[in-house]
Amino acid sequence: MTQQTTQPLRIGDREFTSRLFVGTGKFSSNEAMRDAAAASGTELVTVALKRANLSGDSDPFANILDFLESDRYLILPNTSGAMNAEEAVRIARLAAAAGLPKWVKLEIHPDPNYLLPDPIETLAAAETLVKEGFTVMPYINADPVLALRLQDVGCATVMPLGAPIGSNRGIETRAQIEIIIEQARVPVVVDAGIGAPSHAAAAMEMGADAVLVNTAIAIASDPAAMARAFAKATQAGREAYEIGLGATSSKAEASSPLTAFLNA
Amino acid sequence: MTQQTTQPLRIGDREFTSRLFVGTGKFSSNEAMRDAAAASGTELVTVALKRANLSGDSDPFANILDFLESDRYLILPNTSGAMNAEEAVRIARLAAAAGLPKWVKLEIHPDPNYLLPDPIETLAAAETLVKEGFTVMPYINADPVLALRLQDVGCATVMPLGAPIGSNRGIETRAQIEIIIEQARVPVVVDAGIGAPSHAAAAMEMGADAVLVNTAIAIASDPAAMARAFAKATQAGREAYEIGLGATSSKAEASSPLTAFLNA
Amino acid sequence: MTQQTTQPLRIGDREFTSRLFVGTGKFSSNEAMRDAAAASGTELVTVALKRANLSGDSDPFANILDFLESDRYLILPNTSGAMNAEEAVRIARLAAAAGLPKWVKLEIHPDPNYLLPDPIETLAAAETLVKEGFTVMPYINADPVLALRLQDVGCATVMPLGAPIGSNRGIETRAQIEIIIEQARVPVVVDAGIGAPSHAAAAMEMGADAVLVNTAIAIASDPAAMARAFAKATQAGREAYEIGLGATSSKAEASSPLTAFLNA
Amino acid sequence: MTQQTTQPLRIGDREFTSRLFVGTGKFSSNEAMRDAAAASGTELVTVALKRANLSGDSDPFANILDFLESDRYLILPNTSGAMNAEEAVRIARLAAAAGLPKWVKLEIHPDPNYLLPDPIETLAAAETLVKEGFTVMPYINADPVLALRLQDVGCATVMPLGAPIGSNRGIETRAQIEIIIEQARVPVVVDAGIGAPSHAAAAMEMGADAVLVNTAIAIASDPAAMARAFAKATQAGREAYEIGLGATSSKAEASSPLTAFLNA
Repeated sequence: MTQQTTQPLRIGDREFTSRLFVGTGKFSSNEAMRDAAAASGTELVTVALKRANLSGDSDPFANILDFLESDRYLILPNTSGAMNAEEAVRIARLAAAAGLPKWVKLEIHPDPNYLLPDPIETLAAAETLVKEGFTVMPYINADPVLALRLQDVGCATVMPLGAPIGSNRGIETRAQIEIIIEQARVPVVVDAGIGAPSHAAAAMEMGADAVLVNTAIAIASDPAAMARAFAKATQAGREAYEIGLGATSSKAEASSPLTAFLNA
Repeated sequence: MTQQTTQPLRIGDREFTSRLFVGTGKFSSNEAMRDAAAASGTELVTVALKRANLSGDSDPFANILDFLESDRYLILPNTSGAMNAEEAVRIARLAAAAGLPKWVKLEIHPDPNYLLPDPIETLAAAETLVKEGFTVMPYINADPVLALRLQDVGCATVMPLGAPIGSNRGIETRAQIEIIIEQARVPVVVDAGIGAPSHAAAAMEMGADAVLVNTAIAIASDPAAMARAFAKATQAGREAYEIGLGATSSKAEASSPLTAFLNA
Repeated sequence: MTQQTTQPLRIGDREFTSRLFVGTGKFSSNEAMRDAAAASGTELVTVALKRANLSGDSDPFANILDFLESDRYLILPNTSGAMNAEEAVRIARLAAAAGLPKWVKLEIHPDPNYLLPDPIETLAAAETLVKEGFTVMPYINADPVLALRLQDVGCATVMPLGAPIGSNRGIETRAQIEIIIEQARVPVVVDAGIGAPSHAAAAMEMGADAVLVNTAIAIASDPAAMARAFAKATQAGREAYEIGLGATSSKAEASSPLTAFLNA
Repeated sequence: MTQQTTQPLRIGDREFTSRLFVGTGKFSSNEAMRDAAAASGTELVTVALKRANLSGDSDPFANILDFLESDRYLILPNTSGAMNAEEAVRIARLAAAAGLPKWVKLEIHPDPNYLLPDPIETLAAAETLVKEGFTVMPYINADPVLALRLQDVGCATVMPLGAPIGSNRGIETRAQIEIIIEQARVPVVVDAGIGAPSHAAAAMEMGADAVLVNTAIAIASDPAAMARAFAKATQAGREAYEIGLGATSSKAEASSPLTAFLNA
């Protein structure tokens, strides 16, 4: 495992060494998911309640929690599939009642094509859940004003999307995310759209505090190897951010001396 | 050091484990350069003849070769500062005569503002030097036809630029480099413009065989740490390329199941 | 004036021949504003209430309405400067009470640096004003779900931003605006960020129904000439959209025949 | 026809009012081509020799010149299909011998997939043809050093590509074309890749002197209407360039006053 040397990240009452968070959907098996999570070095894994339920029904992924050591990872229940605040709140409460951490990744996306988040319902659910003591991490469009409002009601992070979930298109919302980062008082986690290690590195170089990756790892031919690649790129981007990247310039600047060596 | 697990890269008669090549200009000291080269894990270091000369003049960098172990790195002399083919050929011959490897990074850039390479002079010099037995690695504009012609005359690689030298602007010539890679029969090394680890990762994900980085490492506040960041990103990008990245899509694809869990 | 041959645009109970809407801020004088509006061929001019008030105070622009023929233009009051829904509603009512059309461009932007719109307050104000019979045109972040919700409550258009107001950066939110257009049941007007005629043309080519331009015209050395340039580009983009633009391709396709003419 | 008010463009001994040049390939008929050329307002039409030949063979387009009034347009023979300098020179001479203007658009593209130009052969052919008295307009990759060399040997323009011919992808080589324009001593005509009116406008706003469009007009469902759209966009972009576009800014700048109007 690559040594981690960057600053730790604090969210709520937890501290994270790795700035790569991973999702658990779309893997071919729970074993593949487990191995990829381990390979990624992550300390935060998000799980949809359906996958994590205890109902014993026939979903082959129903026992997903058996594959995730709770002392190694923070299990972050998410509300994927919720159409409105009421449903999201209900899911979060069920997760907590089932013994999962009182954390929640709020995902409220009424539109089935693009799975884009609903700003109104998300803010409403966030207010309710923060009051109930949840550590709330909302998935949002890259909307700087919404990001501030969610911080105002006590969210622990904001999680703006780079591009639609599963699209692998990278950080299409760069200009807006730069504003969110500039104004943020809580960690900013870039979520959705991160389809390649270079995207993860770029997010970190912009000053994002973490990235969440799922599809690009889960559907790779070798998820564990891809998880390692994302881990390296995330570290690389963060390291570069902490060291400080040079400004861009419009003219060239010689990296080799252009003196009259031929006359030497 | 991160473990390297990707395919080795062959150029001429050499094989490289690391796909990150580094330059030696712009460092604050030879010591800083040496440490950054070591931290990068590179096996190829390019040196301008002036820096590497043996004339004993007062250039504080004149003894740069003392800082580079020749059994650890391939020392690649470059012709930076050459205005035409004749000058470049002369520099290459001087380097070989001085005992440096019979390899050359051809850089012929008559324009002082952007240091962009001259396609005509570069092809002429390449033809001459290949005939003389040099392993020739030409720095070029991202011109697919020129890249093919340089391969036709026997160049060992082509090194298209991403953006002007030292500009840190990344891969502005992406569309052209994609064509160069698609058509290449020799390794493609993206050179110039790589200003952040995410740029290096992106080049590798596109299928470039290696990247050459100088300014972004040399001018960092901590060059060795920045070199490590570039090394990780380069590996991450290459690993993702070898594993295979998913296609991008215009619609979202849920990474969590969207079934009716509330009814479960 | 260039002849307009594209389909008319219907918003609320009005029909527009021109798809270029203009703002009235930042001009050096009311005369310059009047001439630019005339040159633009627009039929919709937006006016901040302060500029349009009837209080007779010392604002040199206070009599702006004297410069805008109400039979030539729809005067669209905007709520620029409103910090929340309550203020925006108050401004809209004042404008209507003062005899202005019962239309309103909702602009609620609590942040003074980027003037980005507040999704929560905008939706709240929209609901109220639609119920009061206003034709409501909300300025919003490029948030597809918010756009749908505003349509659900009866807004006459949605006006997503391309980039922050006055930034001249063009359509940075392209991917999100494409989704908004695809899903829209009302006209989509791209607002803010349109800094060059090419940006206006690009918005129309994407399928936007209209664009709103202010800063780029107002601060030009010759606002009337710049307004004409924007008018041409807006028409050109719309015409191309209606005719249908070709798909892009990754390979070249010869536009000249490549047959063996030398043997002819 | 829209009135043209921008500065005239001088190339060689000719002056052009319109800055839109058009090609004649890919049209469904000579009639469609003729009507589109007329609708575009162009004064320069480029024709491949094969199309323009006088051999009376069975090519349905062989009599293309009958459809182009030589007092209305400068007929610019192009060497499309030439694989090297020798072939291009031969075509140019044939065209001149057949009575066409002693002008030539040099196109030498050995690669059949991308039709990208060969820098070496293009420079060689340009040198020969300039010496023979031709007005030479070379189609080139967006290579600033090559552009300068072609100017040094007496070319009347340089014609860098925005993207591969027929790809409709727009100006992918923007950064390189900006340098070409900055350094140019002759008109710069952006050629290839211009697939939408917004691309033509953007090229002109960057300071290009003209654009050449073929595929996007020829394959449109209504080529004459599309030609008019390109004409308007080209004019709009040029007008904006001559008037002067505002700088972009990272922060917003209010276009409406943000004073305390509610207290008025």
